Amino acid sequence: MRVNAYAAPAAGEPLTPTTIERRDVGPNDVLIAIQYAGICHSDIHTVNGDWGPQPFPVVPGHEIVGVVAEVGADVTKYQAGDRVGVGCMVNSCGECAHCRGGDEQYCINGAVLTYAGADRDGTTTQGGYSTHVVVDADYVLSVPDSLDAAAAAPLLCAGITTYAPLRRWGAGPGKKVAVVGLGGLGHIAVKIAHAMGAEVTVLSQSLKKQDDGLRLGADHYHATSDPDTFTQLAGRFDLIVNTVSADIDTNAYLGLLALDGAMVNVGIAPGPLSVGGILLGSPRRILTGSMFGGIALTQEMLDFCAEHGIGAEVEVISADRVNEAYERVLASDVRYRFVIDTGTIA
Amino acid sequence: MRVNAYAAPAAGEPLTPTTIERRDVGPNDVLIAIQYAGICHSDIHTVNGDWGPQPFPVVPGHEIVGVVAEVGADVTKYQAGDRVGVGCMVNSCGECAHCRGGDEQYCINGAVLTYAGADRDGTTTQGGYSTHVVVDADYVLSVPDSLDAAAAAPLLCAGITTYAPLRRWGAGPGKKVAVVGLGGLGHIAVKIAHAMGAEVTVLSQSLKKQDDGLRLGADHYHATSDPDTFTQLAGRFDLIVNTVSADIDTNAYLGLLALDGAMVNVGIAPGPLSVGGILLGSPRRILTGSMFGGIALTQEMLDFCAEHGIGAEVEVISADRVNEAYERVLASDVRYRFVIDTGTIA
Repeated sequence: MRVNAYAAPAAGEPLTPTTIERRDVGPNDVLIAIQYAGICHSDIHTVNGDWGPQPFPVVPGHEIVGVVAEVGADVTKYQAGDRVGVGCMVNSCGECAHCRGGDEQYCINGAVLTYAGADRDGTTTQGGYSTHVVVDADYVLSVPDSLDAAAAAPLLCAGITTYAPLRRWGAGPGKKVAVVGLGGLGHIAVKIAHAMGAEVTVLSQSLKKQDDGLRLGADHYHATSDPDTFTQLAGRFDLIVNTVSADIDTNAYLGLLALDGAMVNVGIAPGPLSVGGILLGSPRRILTGSMFGGIALTQEMLDFCAEHGIGAEVEVISADRVNEAYERVLASDVRYRFVIDTGTIA
Repeated sequence: MRVNAYAAPAAGEPLTPTTIERRDVGPNDVLIAIQYAGICHSDIHTVNGDWGPQPFPVVPGHEIVGVVAEVGADVTKYQAGDRVGVGCMVNSCGECAHCRGGDEQYCINGAVLTYAGADRDGTTTQGGYSTHVVVDADYVLSVPDSLDAAAAAPLLCAGITTYAPLRRWGAGPGKKVAVVGLGGLGHIAVKIAHAMGAEVTVLSQSLKKQDDGLRLGADHYHATSDPDTFTQLAGRFDLIVNTVSADIDTNAYLGLLALDGAMVNVGIAPGPLSVGGILLGSPRRILTGSMFGGIALTQEMLDFCAEHGIGAEVEVISADRVNEAYERVLASDVRYRFVIDTGTIA
């Protein structure tokens, strides 16, 4: 079937309306009528060619919420009318150690990304800036009805990307968690960490968003432009979730970790990190990363967010404003996530 | 009391015989007649001024084994004639969170290092290249009689420095552990990891010490000068213990880690580490460090080594050969640890 979509025709070019082919619904497939698609910074990096050559035209979008329109013969988990979501991946081998361990995002044979990915049938995947998508049921998430559909969309990437390290490193009562950067990822990290019971500190360049940060659930808010922040908070945190993709002074942040504390980069800085070895060993501190999360964990995150009433703070836009939205994301002028109402894609 | 010792009179100068003052035996002190003192690379760094200015003259030595000669009135744990050891620290505040948690080496108020340290009474500590030392009983270890005294000395630093990360990161049956560097620390790491039941791989610059490595307990041995090593072993290890203090290509080693694997630097490279962020997050990998270990863990290590018959491979020397030994350590010409017979200090 041919469906309407917004695609980047080539690297760095504005997105334009187009039509794309979606595969027939196979026995284990789900056809989803998309309602909302979040705009992730990765979408912009990809279409701008920041991450290397891409199979243009590219339809971005991996924060997808919609309603099941049709299911394949073998699908028992979903039925027409169910509210569902799709995140950053739509397939993986399902057989390697990582897939079997619930870390399909690290599939040794290569997870199939939701757009610009090579699907297992050889076609190129196209993302959520579109009216419909066909996805293997095993990679479709159930989105609880209590969640607002638009606010839920960003959970599929920003939510799991921050939930995964918070869960992995034990954010919860008695734990001091810092979130670096209060943007699309950071603002959800604050909500989730707070709901987990942790004491949450936002470390942001300035105090500009302080009121927001505290409203979202942060207990403390500090400006990283103030050198006193790094003195005052030395050795404080059990966990630092760094959502900033730009190069930051890794050593300064490592100095804020308590003994056995972990700093997790969920963004990928363009350059290599420069790390003072002594900061890792005296006292023991951990530097690590994390890339979205597996399917079971993503479902757990959605259920957790539903239970705690957590959605993203979103600005819903019509599809024809996507290029303007990209400009505003690059200018950090969004609180905190753009979501495309895909009903406007004509 | 005045006792004989070997001291570096100034940065970079050869060690010479001298006498130093040891404090009177206080109520909680132990007077130890030293038998053996290992030569650690840290000793050389310190006296050469590589780690900044030092309170010369400096008597190095923090791998000390001896026999209790006298105990203070309140000491119940030791009595004259007991075989004991002293490692890298001789005091700490005992009250901070790290001390209370058994990580006295990370004492927030500053662990007192065994030599060139500021002791809590304001005096400067002097190390084990000496005939006697007076140490607070809480920082004295019991050295099981089944261990050879000379071979046990290096356990007090090299042993605990490698045991701590192996224990912390779960080396054991089913775990693949790589030890980078087969020197003073590395050769003990191999023995301990093997005794813990892990599958042990040595990663050494060349295959020169391969026979030794396999004899010491390694299952595999690879040359890091061979680029194929990094292809062949990609994603293999649950744990990499890096004992090399020189700058190495951290990214190349991170690439050898399995999902959720950890690379622990126990040496401190002179320069900052350059780390590709993507290597930490895809798949998840951990970069961390470790600095010797707490008192209880050091005792556990000594008991473990006694149970498994583990000592260092040592070359015992008389004290007058200490400067020659330093030269040979710097030339990597020792298999695998020099130990001074302190009975030769006149």
